Amino acid sequence: MQRKKLRYGMVGGDLNAFIGGVHRAAISFEGKAFLVAGCFNPDQSANRECGEFYQLADDRIYADYKEMAEKESKREDKLDFVTIVTPNFLHYQVAKEFLSKGINVVCEKPLCFELEEAKELEALAKEKGLLFCVTYGYSGFPMVKLAKKLVKDGVIGDIINVNAEYLQEWLIDDIGAGDISTNKLSVWRKDPKVAGISNCVGDIGTHIKHTVSYITGLKLKKIAAKLDYFGQPLDLNANILVELENGASGVFCSSQVCVGHANGLVARIFGTKGAIEWVQEDPNYLKVTLKGQPPQIYNRGMGYVTGRASELNRIPSGHPEGLYEAFANIYKTYINALLKKINGEELSENDLDFPTVSEGAEGVKFIHAVIESNKKQSAWVNL
Amino acid sequence: MQRKKLRYGMVGGDLNAFIGGVHRAAISFEGKAFLVAGCFNPDQSANRECGEFYQLADDRIYADYKEMAEKESKREDKLDFVTIVTPNFLHYQVAKEFLSKGINVVCEKPLCFELEEAKELEALAKEKGLLFCVTYGYSGFPMVKLAKKLVKDGVIGDIINVNAEYLQEWLIDDIGAGDISTNKLSVWRKDPKVAGISNCVGDIGTHIKHTVSYITGLKLKKIAAKLDYFGQPLDLNANILVELENGASGVFCSSQVCVGHANGLVARIFGTKGAIEWVQEDPNYLKVTLKGQPPQIYNRGMGYVTGRASELNRIPSGHPEGLYEAFANIYKTYINALLKKINGEELSENDLDFPTVSEGAEGVKFIHAVIESNKKQSAWVNL
Amino acid sequence: MQRKKLRYGMVGGDLNAFIGGVHRAAISFEGKAFLVAGCFNPDQSANRECGEFYQLADDRIYADYKEMAEKESKREDKLDFVTIVTPNFLHYQVAKEFLSKGINVVCEKPLCFELEEAKELEALAKEKGLLFCVTYGYSGFPMVKLAKKLVKDGVIGDIINVNAEYLQEWLIDDIGAGDISTNKLSVWRKDPKVAGISNCVGDIGTHIKHTVSYITGLKLKKIAAKLDYFGQPLDLNANILVELENGASGVFCSSQVCVGHANGLVARIFGTKGAIEWVQEDPNYLKVTLKGQPPQIYNRGMGYVTGRASELNRIPSGHPEGLYEAFANIYKTYINALLKKINGEELSENDLDFPTVSEGAEGVKFIHAVIESNKKQSAWVNL
Amino acid sequence: MQRKKLRYGMVGGDLNAFIGGVHRAAISFEGKAFLVAGCFNPDQSANRECGEFYQLADDRIYADYKEMAEKESKREDKLDFVTIVTPNFLHYQVAKEFLSKGINVVCEKPLCFELEEAKELEALAKEKGLLFCVTYGYSGFPMVKLAKKLVKDGVIGDIINVNAEYLQEWLIDDIGAGDISTNKLSVWRKDPKVAGISNCVGDIGTHIKHTVSYITGLKLKKIAAKLDYFGQPLDLNANILVELENGASGVFCSSQVCVGHANGLVARIFGTKGAIEWVQEDPNYLKVTLKGQPPQIYNRGMGYVTGRASELNRIPSGHPEGLYEAFANIYKTYINALLKKINGEELSENDLDFPTVSEGAEGVKFIHAVIESNKKQSAWVNL
Repeated sequence: MQRKKLRYGMVGGDLNAFIGGVHRAAISFEGKAFLVAGCFNPDQSANRECGEFYQLADDRIYADYKEMAEKESKREDKLDFVTIVTPNFLHYQVAKEFLSKGINVVCEKPLCFELEEAKELEALAKEKGLLFCVTYGYSGFPMVKLAKKLVKDGVIGDIINVNAEYLQEWLIDDIGAGDISTNKLSVWRKDPKVAGISNCVGDIGTHIKHTVSYITGLKLKKIAAKLDYFGQPLDLNANILVELENGASGVFCSSQVCVGHANGLVARIFGTKGAIEWVQEDPNYLKVTLKGQPPQIYNRGMGYVTGRASELNRIPSGHPEGLYEAFANIYKTYINALLKKINGEELSENDLDFPTVSEGAEGVKFIHAVIESNKKQSAWVNL
Repeated sequence: MQRKKLRYGMVGGDLNAFIGGVHRAAISFEGKAFLVAGCFNPDQSANRECGEFYQLADDRIYADYKEMAEKESKREDKLDFVTIVTPNFLHYQVAKEFLSKGINVVCEKPLCFELEEAKELEALAKEKGLLFCVTYGYSGFPMVKLAKKLVKDGVIGDIINVNAEYLQEWLIDDIGAGDISTNKLSVWRKDPKVAGISNCVGDIGTHIKHTVSYITGLKLKKIAAKLDYFGQPLDLNANILVELENGASGVFCSSQVCVGHANGLVARIFGTKGAIEWVQEDPNYLKVTLKGQPPQIYNRGMGYVTGRASELNRIPSGHPEGLYEAFANIYKTYINALLKKINGEELSENDLDFPTVSEGAEGVKFIHAVIESNKKQSAWVNL
Repeated sequence: MQRKKLRYGMVGGDLNAFIGGVHRAAISFEGKAFLVAGCFNPDQSANRECGEFYQLADDRIYADYKEMAEKESKREDKLDFVTIVTPNFLHYQVAKEFLSKGINVVCEKPLCFELEEAKELEALAKEKGLLFCVTYGYSGFPMVKLAKKLVKDGVIGDIINVNAEYLQEWLIDDIGAGDISTNKLSVWRKDPKVAGISNCVGDIGTHIKHTVSYITGLKLKKIAAKLDYFGQPLDLNANILVELENGASGVFCSSQVCVGHANGLVARIFGTKGAIEWVQEDPNYLKVTLKGQPPQIYNRGMGYVTGRASELNRIPSGHPEGLYEAFANIYKTYINALLKKINGEELSENDLDFPTVSEGAEGVKFIHAVIESNKKQSAWVNL
Repeated sequence: MQRKKLRYGMVGGDLNAFIGGVHRAAISFEGKAFLVAGCFNPDQSANRECGEFYQLADDRIYADYKEMAEKESKREDKLDFVTIVTPNFLHYQVAKEFLSKGINVVCEKPLCFELEEAKELEALAKEKGLLFCVTYGYSGFPMVKLAKKLVKDGVIGDIINVNAEYLQEWLIDDIGAGDISTNKLSVWRKDPKVAGISNCVGDIGTHIKHTVSYITGLKLKKIAAKLDYFGQPLDLNANILVELENGASGVFCSSQVCVGHANGLVARIFGTKGAIEWVQEDPNYLKVTLKGQPPQIYNRGMGYVTGRASELNRIPSGHPEGLYEAFANIYKTYINALLKKINGEELSENDLDFPTVSEGAEGVKFIHAVIESNKKQSAWVNL
């Protein structure tokens, strides 16, 4: 019998967490997967409160994620996938645990801290034949899909230069702050034990890297980076020269101390025949310029927007879709792929158009290269 | 015992319908109301398919909305509210049926065709003590809430002029089209039997009216309108002079034949001390200018955004929220109000900050005045 | 012998005047006309100071414009044209004087106060065979020329709707001001003796009318207007329904009390095949949308910009041209036409592409119709 | 006797030249300096045609710039200054010649090719007590002046990061072009003998450098650059990491092959208390964001715009000023300073607010550092 719906569990993301709620709402858009189990918080009161709100069976509100992986893997009505939305430093161990038990995984980025860990997870998913998604949410926006399609179709020719940035302002008060405990909001992002070796590049710089690679279909060949710490243990500002695998040059600028920018992810891709520009804060549009012609402002949902961008369009053009819908698109793709897989259908390339564990591993590699280059006086470091 | 969750039903909105899906996704954001019954389509195959997809109990997939109102009203676990997303011409009769049976109602706009019907529904809801929401979805955007607050707080002084528009292009091919059957997409909007006495003003012009009245807190005193039909039975283009109840002048422009505009609802409100501008296609921002100062671009989610706009904020500033989230805000408010009411709590003005049946009736009145003015050579018609 | 350069005189516009300086700088761009005579100010000290600064011959700094017209008309090296930049109420009499003496005229707008005066000037120029330019400066912008060309070439099809506005904020403090003498800056604009029967519509509303008629090639058939005076003797705010001679509808909004708008002339022209939008505050661009295609942002100076817009382009694309250059374009055209005429060459339609006395007369007619309609409860008034 | 007007000459810039015309028009804005001598083109027919058009005395149309410097220096009514608008490779020798003869110099950028030459010119001007202006035209825009003032006044705190770019598209066809002769338009920019050691960085990258240094008041400490040549003899694309003298980081991106960008000079300056952004293609505005507040869009000419930006404002806010006016501002400042100097008045810092020979020398140093860094695998090179 064909499965039409999936069961999922969640690790992390109690009722007060931000990103957990985004994931749950995103999954609910299609009504094709239901939350049945969870281990939302080491604090058992918060954990139970969340489980009860979602009306989970009592024995599926787990105090411990290992227990959850173990017990769920043995149920007949076990989880089809688990979503991991814990703090960064737990991603690796939680993902590994569920993969080991044969459960498909969706994990927030960064995938993990060490490249070896990333490789291990990648290998484990492959060995077990599981679908592993790393939620680079911005790649779920339809106009990012369109950008990828235009590049692939050769519309802008060969890529010769990229200029991408992710600028925020929310940690500006950390400059000159005496120690990492002064800013409660950001302390866990600045503590290497919790956040890993990088703050700014790890948290948002990786999104630049992913977005550019996703759109262009090109990996990074090498980078040369200069980071600014402003007296803090982890980086707050990064300016990075890059070279893509095809020899194209570019810069990535990532910052959490640029006043005037809330969440300014911008990707500008320049080719021999044209250019495209996508701005996350205005995500329903894509600026496309062909050589010798006026810039064109493509609008999500119009008839001239085709391919994946069209398939994933939800509401008529001019009615804005936002971040929730982008996440919902990633889950829609992942869940449909998983349904097909479970039902024994073959998966096409389009079916698998969600960010994978390999892309997560690429992100980890990028972070390490940037840190290394900065230590070596901005020398080029290969990826 | 305190109720924490609600049960709802839906009339209209099968799996292929656009707006029904938006309503269901919007409701699911908070996880506080569950679909338990429905009458989604007169076509019983489509009706059952939808009910089954949402795993409704067999006896709660109704073939007829009257039967649904009747039977649900007698269940112990009956609907807390019904959402009506049928074609326009059915709104009145369906809403009346459910109100009569004591069930709270959420209804798509336009509320109904005739002012008498609107008054009847308004009275019925009052008599039965029911909460009736008309989903003017755009008023759910946080920055519209902020605009309302700024006006109320006197930040822009007394309102002296308003300039608002709602421009679309999607019916451009109807110009010169031989008869209403040529454009399958829009035929039901152009047929007076189905769409009512107005197409363009009824469908989108009412949103201009609602948005301006909502932000300014001012009703319309009178209007003078010129409509264009381009050979079709219903209007496709409208230019309207308005006067608000405080004597402020303005214009409303509503069109479905303005190429280059997908869904261009824009409200510009001018006061003696300042001005505000909100653009639906870029809804996370509000342009606020105080006399003698540079324009400021307020950004959803920032610390300086307070009041309802802050309460309804979902994700950090710079992460775009779109139409789904605006609808979700309306449902969040409505559902919380209903929960409070059911649980015997008192409702504050903020609790009731969702578009009501009275606002729906105002919309109907506006449509009739516009049609009348156009027939009278754009003479002023009082509302 | 071929003339290569022209001699001009000026009435009004001493060293402290704003618009006089713009005219002189605009004329100097091409180096084809030189100031040789003037009557800059009734105050003789200011008058002489200005004449001396420009190194005029002593006997060509005139105390009286009548004397100037008389004496200049008799010189062998007489003026080829005079530029009139006096306060509005003097335009008619000064223009008439110079025309009578056979001297070509460039006059600031509004041409005059009464339609009969306008007709008289028009007839006089025709009778004398003189070139008469009324400086509607905005029509000198290359992208306005391109807009006109695109409409003429049928690119956007038949015009069906226009939406144009000219919003300023600089008289906001006049609202509630006790009498017209409180605001020194604007007093002469609010005094009917000096400014004529209208302030806001006369000063800026006429630019909307001219811009729309220039771009579309269509005259106004009728208008229905509502004006706001806010207790002042002349209008400060105007909302106007319009119908063009081809039956297209539209609105013109003109205001000097809209906070947040410095000099917001915007023309949006909608046709059956496309639409164009031009924004004076960002004048080097033209937004052009063809039905079913993404909006395109045409950029002045690019290869795809042809016709008059290309001929009048001065510097490479991306280097902004502003109001001075727009005025310079009008003078360039006028001076070249006058040179051709003087040299006995034939004048093409393009040669005469500057705003004429007939367009000035149209503007006067428009002002009167608006005032009349407002007095008649916004009844339609034919032009 | 007080001098009120100046005499100037020009080397280069015949009637067909682009930038020469801009300089002449810019000078004519104020009417305070008159062209009296020139050596416009080695082609004597073009040379005479230009001189005659400007009605120069026959003996002041020079065939040779050395002769011009020599003869003019001996006249009683000699040049007060000369403007040099020749191809780049001639700047040094022409400037040297006129300085040697005691004539003040205005020179297009780049000042020269070699740092030693720059130092020599700087020393010579100092020794002779002459005013030497290098026309970095963009620094004449009022809003650039305002940016500088805001930084100086501490409004945005300490500078911590800069992100600036100058993107053009006009040489895109050079990519893959067989040799430098294929594109007539750009051949002289790609020939090292004529253009110097750099094309893209020399022509436009230096404007980034100058704009950032001018606004921040900070010199560059070091740079790390990656250039792209795409098979051509000189660079077409540059991505550069920078460090300012106060330790702030940043990137400069300069390109002539970025489709979609006509003349995209953009400077974004980030400080500990705020940020400013200026966009050359929209030069009448300045985006200013203070920490924790909404971005503000400052508009040229408004009351809140003070200092030099206000002094140099020409026309009311909302009437766009462009590149000509920016150049005119530089000349206005230079000419007024020269008049004061000639008249024996003291010069304030504001009087000398035009780009100097020292700034020209800084530009030459920057170009050499960038070329060196690129050769050394993007190693940091000190300035």
